[in-house]
Amino acid sequence: MDFSMKNWFSEVNELWPGQSMSLKVKKLLWEEKSPFQHIQIFESETYGRVLALDGIIQCTERDEFAYQEMISFLPLCCHPEPKKVLIVGGGDGGVAREVVKHPLVQEVCQVEIDERVVELSKEYLPFMACGFTSPKLTLTIGDGFDFMKNHVGEFDVIITDSSDPVGPAVCLFQESYFSLMKCALRPGGIVCSQGGTYWTEMNQVKDTLTHCRSQFPVAGYAYSSVPTYPCGQIGYVIGSLNENTNLKEPTVIFSEEELEKMGMRYYSADIHRAAFTLPRYAANVLK
Amino acid sequence: MDFSMKNWFSEVNELWPGQSMSLKVKKLLWEEKSPFQHIQIFESETYGRVLALDGIIQCTERDEFAYQEMISFLPLCCHPEPKKVLIVGGGDGGVAREVVKHPLVQEVCQVEIDERVVELSKEYLPFMACGFTSPKLTLTIGDGFDFMKNHVGEFDVIITDSSDPVGPAVCLFQESYFSLMKCALRPGGIVCSQGGTYWTEMNQVKDTLTHCRSQFPVAGYAYSSVPTYPCGQIGYVIGSLNENTNLKEPTVIFSEEELEKMGMRYYSADIHRAAFTLPRYAANVLK
Repeated sequence: MDFSMKNWFSEVNELWPGQSMSLKVKKLLWEEKSPFQHIQIFESETYGRVLALDGIIQCTERDEFAYQEMISFLPLCCHPEPKKVLIVGGGDGGVAREVVKHPLVQEVCQVEIDERVVELSKEYLPFMACGFTSPKLTLTIGDGFDFMKNHVGEFDVIITDSSDPVGPAVCLFQESYFSLMKCALRPGGIVCSQGGTYWTEMNQVKDTLTHCRSQFPVAGYAYSSVPTYPCGQIGYVIGSLNENTNLKEPTVIFSEEELEKMGMRYYSADIHRAAFTLPRYAANVLK
Repeated sequence: MDFSMKNWFSEVNELWPGQSMSLKVKKLLWEEKSPFQHIQIFESETYGRVLALDGIIQCTERDEFAYQEMISFLPLCCHPEPKKVLIVGGGDGGVAREVVKHPLVQEVCQVEIDERVVELSKEYLPFMACGFTSPKLTLTIGDGFDFMKNHVGEFDVIITDSSDPVGPAVCLFQESYFSLMKCALRPGGIVCSQGGTYWTEMNQVKDTLTHCRSQFPVAGYAYSSVPTYPCGQIGYVIGSLNENTNLKEPTVIFSEEELEKMGMRYYSADIHRAAFTLPRYAANVLK
């Protein structure tokens, strides 16, 4: 039962032992070791262009919208007036592309630690890097922790678009990070972090949610389908400083026409509500 | 970017070109060519025992419950009184295991074309084959089409647990099959068929749903997360002869205590409702 995966990219990682997603490679476009991570960009046979960091698929042209729309619009639509937004990470530009679509968002700050991801995305992943061109956006290259320490009480929504909790992103899943985000929020502010999948990382999901709950009176876990993430899905840990927030019910509801105009392919108010409904065993562990 | 997948089982198929799910193999337990298909059963490193037919993963010990519970309880809970149920396919026994749990189900007929799958499941996959031991069940080895022609107007619910629309299962996705099921149902009867994923097989999903709609006044598509199926999910095409059926709202709602007693790990009334909510682009294609 050996398999020769010639010209395939296979994602093998100890975060999800014994399973591997592979994509057939048409052409490797770029590869380098930045000061922070191993960056690979390739053209795949059937998923368009792909960005991988440290051997883990971050986004593919075919399904990235599912993740970017959800990590952006779940928190944005829980906030009645998300005027000023901070994005931590998200160096490919995809989350910025989504956040600036929201008509109530006036100003977006983004802080990404690895300048090379931004530069390479601009060169090879224009469908995401287009997010950087918005006049609403100010991009800072640096450390999210340092940035937030200098921007206390400034943001309505903070979105953390990080890689998985190995390597440079480990600190973004700890309680101290949620505490720091809390300080950087305005009253009633909302945070949303990439939160892993309950299928392979239940303990990690539970820990992240516990950290969020320790700092925010309202917290929850939602998920969406993304074929090229482990187990075909990814989760979102969301917290609100407003104890009256019902995360499952969007505060801002867009019409079909508005969603169409914004080019939304995954997000809708119905998907927002359904995203918080977990399989029974996961609901019991995370309740 | 070549990868040596030594001791891995890799699922490469033209139904989902350019992508592949792999599971690390601990031990190959059995392999044979039956008159109908190539059967492989192996012990995996992290997903327990795995059944593959013609190179496609059918079920793993770790996540099969998600599929079996949903393909069974979605239709069963839409019917007010599912006394007599027919299972077409499902030779591993997993669907039978779920269907007989429902307290209103009195009698289950199952017709499976490949006796070897049943026999090998009994030997290697006892966690699913246990479904065959229920006194409610009568198993017939044979062709589902022939069986239904001889059982007109007999069933409240028909569940088609088939492999994908290649090889022996192609005919189970055609309009003539939905027409035959309609004849085998009692008034107000409900059908549920494995329906593929909108991520890779949108045309197939749409065709199957169209066939269902041509025969049933009420029809819909739901899906659940199953990590070892392509794109990490699988869909269900459901039709009802009762034009007042609201597929999204279960008719029979079990309490938490009842679900616990039945050993349900995925299904709940909330998951039932959420399963019909599609990402915006898929909802628009399948509406």
